[in-house]
Amino acid sequence: MDLLKHAITVKGKVLPGDVLKVGSFLNQQIDVRLLAEMAKDIFARFCNCAVTKVLTVESSGIALACLTAQFFNCNAVFAKKSKSNNIEGEILSAECYSYTHKTANVLLVPREYIAPDDKVLFVDDFLAKGEALRAAVKLVKEAGATFVGAAIAIEKGFQGGGDALRKEGVDVYSLAIIDSMKPGEIVFRN
Amino acid sequence: MDLLKHAITVKGKVLPGDVLKVGSFLNQQIDVRLLAEMAKDIFARFCNCAVTKVLTVESSGIALACLTAQFFNCNAVFAKKSKSNNIEGEILSAECYSYTHKTANVLLVPREYIAPDDKVLFVDDFLAKGEALRAAVKLVKEAGATFVGAAIAIEKGFQGGGDALRKEGVDVYSLAIIDSMKPGEIVFRN
Repeated sequence: MDLLKHAITVKGKVLPGDVLKVGSFLNQQIDVRLLAEMAKDIFARFCNCAVTKVLTVESSGIALACLTAQFFNCNAVFAKKSKSNNIEGEILSAECYSYTHKTANVLLVPREYIAPDDKVLFVDDFLAKGEALRAAVKLVKEAGATFVGAAIAIEKGFQGGGDALRKEGVDVYSLAIIDSMKPGEIVFRN
Repeated sequence: MDLLKHAITVKGKVLPGDVLKVGSFLNQQIDVRLLAEMAKDIFARFCNCAVTKVLTVESSGIALACLTAQFFNCNAVFAKKSKSNNIEGEILSAECYSYTHKTANVLLVPREYIAPDDKVLFVDDFLAKGEALRAAVKLVKEAGATFVGAAIAIEKGFQGGGDALRKEGVDVYSLAIIDSMKPGEIVFRN
């Protein structure tokens, strides 16, 4: 998606440890005009899939998930990364290691927020090794719902998670796939 | 705001410890249609204030902040509650105790995301004792920017934070103010 690739090229910063910092427009400061265009693009890709729920993970996926849910005219839900004292009732959970933050998380969603007849689209800001996406697939399966696919803003293609999941049959759509990056040079997959 | 009060009355659950659970529509599962109406209401209240940035705190304020920023045609920014390994550069910080989660947090925003000429509207899902709002005022002051006011979805009026801040001159606008609550009975301020 050219608008996003342009923003990454102009405003993204490659930091040590394969970190791409896009906090100035995507996931801490949020350029809602850009994200609305991204959401429109995601809608065009999945508009025939009868999506009834958009699922993401706190915190950085919430903005894109909400704007995407507006196009599908459905609710968004985010998984929390640890138990809060106001999650009650039966909980869906899946383990998820974050290579970015070097922490083991458990993703949690109250079961009542994903119904067995839901068709769930997962939305997130990044896909690297695919840990969050795998956990999302597991959560949706545990809910007895249908996992439609995943819409990702930026896939770090060189980390292999997206391609591995595609081989396993998961429908992964990434708006920008980075094949390699170093300071001053980000190479996108065509 | 009647739509929100209706949703709170029908779907909210009062839990022990003065917790009002509204995760089914406001801050974990997100009813984007309702939140867009709430954002429109916030815009009507602050549309003459030349707002250039909407500030919130992760995670539960992000959805409403983004939808509000769409009306103001400006960026949203959220403060993180702890240092991530991809926050770099100079950081604005303010301490903030969460009575809900019983944790002391430090709110962090990269300085570059709030410019001295920004007019900042703070948006959040809840206002109880006002800790997050006080921290936000401090962050904006530290940035040298202008704090326009605060738009809150649900104010727990009986906890006094909103009224104390109004007395101090902060422009606090809450879409629903709860004067008292117990299971099965939520009383709103007129």
